[in-house]
Amino acid sequence: MTRALALATSPGVPLGPNPRVGCVLLSPMGTTLAEGFHRGAGSPHAEVDALARAGDRARGATAVVTLEPCNHTGRTGPCAEALVAAGVARVVYAQADTNPVAEGGAATLRRAGVEVVGGLLADEARAVNREWTFAVEHGRPFVTWKFATTLDGRSAAADGTSRWVSSRPARIDTHRLRARCDTILVGTETVLVDDPQLTVRDEADENLPRERQLLRAVMGLRDVPADRRVRDDAADFVHLRTRDPHEALGALFARDRQHVFLEGGPTLAAAFLRAGLVDEVVAYVAPMLLGTGRSAVGDLGVTTIADAWHLAVTDVTVLGEGEETNVRLTMTPQDRKEDND
Amino acid sequence: MTRALALATSPGVPLGPNPRVGCVLLSPMGTTLAEGFHRGAGSPHAEVDALARAGDRARGATAVVTLEPCNHTGRTGPCAEALVAAGVARVVYAQADTNPVAEGGAATLRRAGVEVVGGLLADEARAVNREWTFAVEHGRPFVTWKFATTLDGRSAAADGTSRWVSSRPARIDTHRLRARCDTILVGTETVLVDDPQLTVRDEADENLPRERQLLRAVMGLRDVPADRRVRDDAADFVHLRTRDPHEALGALFARDRQHVFLEGGPTLAAAFLRAGLVDEVVAYVAPMLLGTGRSAVGDLGVTTIADAWHLAVTDVTVLGEGEETNVRLTMTPQDRKEDND
Ligand SMILES: NC(=O)c1ccc[n+]([C@@H]2O[C@H](COP(=O)([O-])OP(=O)(O)OC[C@H]3O[C@@H](n4cnc5c(N)ncnc54)[C@H](OP(=O)(O)O)[C@@H]3O)[C@@H](O)[C@H]2O)c1
Ligand SMILES: NC(=O)c1ccc[n+]([C@@H]2O[C@H](COP(=O)([O-])OP(=O)(O)OC[C@H]3O[C@@H](n4cnc5c(N)ncnc54)[C@H](OP(=O)(O)O)[C@@H]3O)[C@@H](O)[C@H]2O)c1
Repeated sequence: MTRALALATSPGVPLGPNPRVGCVLLSPMGTTLAEGFHRGAGSPHAEVDALARAGDRARGATAVVTLEPCNHTGRTGPCAEALVAAGVARVVYAQADTNPVAEGGAATLRRAGVEVVGGLLADEARAVNREWTFAVEHGRPFVTWKFATTLDGRSAAADGTSRWVSSRPARIDTHRLRARCDTILVGTETVLVDDPQLTVRDEADENLPRERQLLRAVMGLRDVPADRRVRDDAADFVHLRTRDPHEALGALFARDRQHVFLEGGPTLAAAFLRAGLVDEVVAYVAPMLLGTGRSAVGDLGVTTIADAWHLAVTDVTVLGEGEETNVRLTMTPQDRKEDND
Repeated sequence: MTRALALATSPGVPLGPNPRVGCVLLSPMGTTLAEGFHRGAGSPHAEVDALARAGDRARGATAVVTLEPCNHTGRTGPCAEALVAAGVARVVYAQADTNPVAEGGAATLRRAGVEVVGGLLADEARAVNREWTFAVEHGRPFVTWKFATTLDGRSAAADGTSRWVSSRPARIDTHRLRARCDTILVGTETVLVDDPQLTVRDEADENLPRERQLLRAVMGLRDVPADRRVRDDAADFVHLRTRDPHEALGALFARDRQHVFLEGGPTLAAAFLRAGLVDEVVAYVAPMLLGTGRSAVGDLGVTTIADAWHLAVTDVTVLGEGEETNVRLTMTPQDRKEDND
């Protein structure tokens, strides 16, 4: 299974709407017959990839696979049936597939007389597809909220200027984080004020191809004029004409989106926090003081310390050095009563 | 000299108004005759300590000492004369003594026919007595400003409550930092609102003796009522009845103070920053969001980003974990035009 997990995360597999899956076919003696992995939407599933390589030798074999074989006919046929047809005797899988359209593969296999064992290294397998797993289980994308702030909680000076709040190393790091998501989300005000392009750039390769870009989503009731950079040809664009974070995430989930990178501004981020719809927070703290100026975080409805939003820190990374330092904190919001106003 | 520096920082030497100094006496052959170090105000200087141990063997010896031998008669006689009287042939020192009352030791030695070499490992020696060196050279104490903040730059919620902004590990760490200073300074408002005791406590030994406490200084024009905890018997107290940071530091320097721990509040800290009188900043950042509430830093007169206060980060330390994490940033303010209003 460790080998199958390594196959699942083979380098070069594009992050897409599909989970990353690896499969190893073992002979009854325990020797490896063939390996396979899924190379992204439209290409064969890991099991089918391995079966194709094994050919006739798959008869009587054990398939070790990181995700419960699927039971549905999408762009490729159901894997459960392919395994049965190939004469596989035993299937060992890690993570159960709770995706409503694909679940039931284990039951199909058992009915066909295949021995099935599930749950081996399930936590490790879930971690490989953290956002896919989250989206399948919650029926909405995983939301990472990123913000940049001075040490005293400001995103810009009183006149709106904000240079250096993100250092160059922090900006490069932000593009790396964006590239791990499938959607960038901002409020209409950020688009109207800053006119950002919201593409992914790469230190090595400034002009990434369109396929490697994320969906650019702008949320809010006001129009997004056609001349805004967020509507250029560099990547896809969607206007979510609502103020309801649940509705916006529902619309993105319906488009197969699993990981939203929420880049502000403070008003939109506060709305997501208040709705309990932020799953991860990434803060870049700059060693600057402004004293006054624009707050990096909007009104959260907190008046007393007992109602503060608490986060658990999972990582602290120092980017750059000296005056150019940015400290990146990665955090998970702690449970609290949902606030529905 | 490396050995002399190690002696200077011998464990148990109390931090006092005097510099920490180490001395090694070497025979003409280069073998160690005796070692000495200064054990704090009132005890013999390092050279005298070493000479007493060497006795007659000091004749013709080389004295290796971390600070230029003093030339003044304080609680002990001038070391330059003691070295001459003992017949020392050669003196090698690290840091020059620019203290107006003590300088001139090298000249005295040379006049008496002693060979003198200065400047060996001078930077290392200056670092041993960073605050003493700073105070002697600037004619005022070194100022470390410490503040605690949420991720969004708040020191308390709108109603003034502030629990958890400092985690337990951060509070213990603050007491450790206080213990490295000789004075704690706050504004009258902090005393009137919070009534803090401003003593040093120790994780191992909660009730430290009075000798290990710092001078508690309160700055501002209003009276500090006699029943305030800052005026109790646990440590010394001084009321600096002024709003001029230069004047306040002058008064503290006149009392032999070399290292002030400025603990706020935001108004007083902003006044020191604007006067260019903050030499080091220690910020404890808590993984909490308040959205609104009291700012951790007062008005700095900044209206546009070009006037932001920039700091160079010298250390980032993570204290505690999960929700209890505090990230401690240690920083040096970068040069800027002084703002004298
Ligand atoms: N520090 C950072 O990391 C960071 C990141 C991004 C932006 N910024 C700065 O933030 C500034 C913009 O601030 P902002 O907070 O006003 O921008 P914003 O959050 O991007 O946009 C706010 C707008 O979003 C719409 N909206 C959608 N859902 C909403 C909801 N549930 N509640 C309230 N409004 C909702 C509203 O516009 P409609 O009237 O159209 O509905 C609202 O005016 C810019 O100057 C930008 O530079 C900072
Ligand atoms: N986040 C933190 O780390 C931290 C640390 C300490 C305190 N606090 C909080 O801060 C709050 C107090 O805030 P604060 O900023 O008003 O307190 P503060 O800075 O302690 O005191 C302000 C007072 O100091 C006097 N003062 C002396 N020199 C001054 C100058 N150059 N400019 C202006 N005033 C000068 C003034 O009083 P006179 O009229 O008497 O001259 C002024 O009202 C408390 O609630 C406390 O809990 C937070």
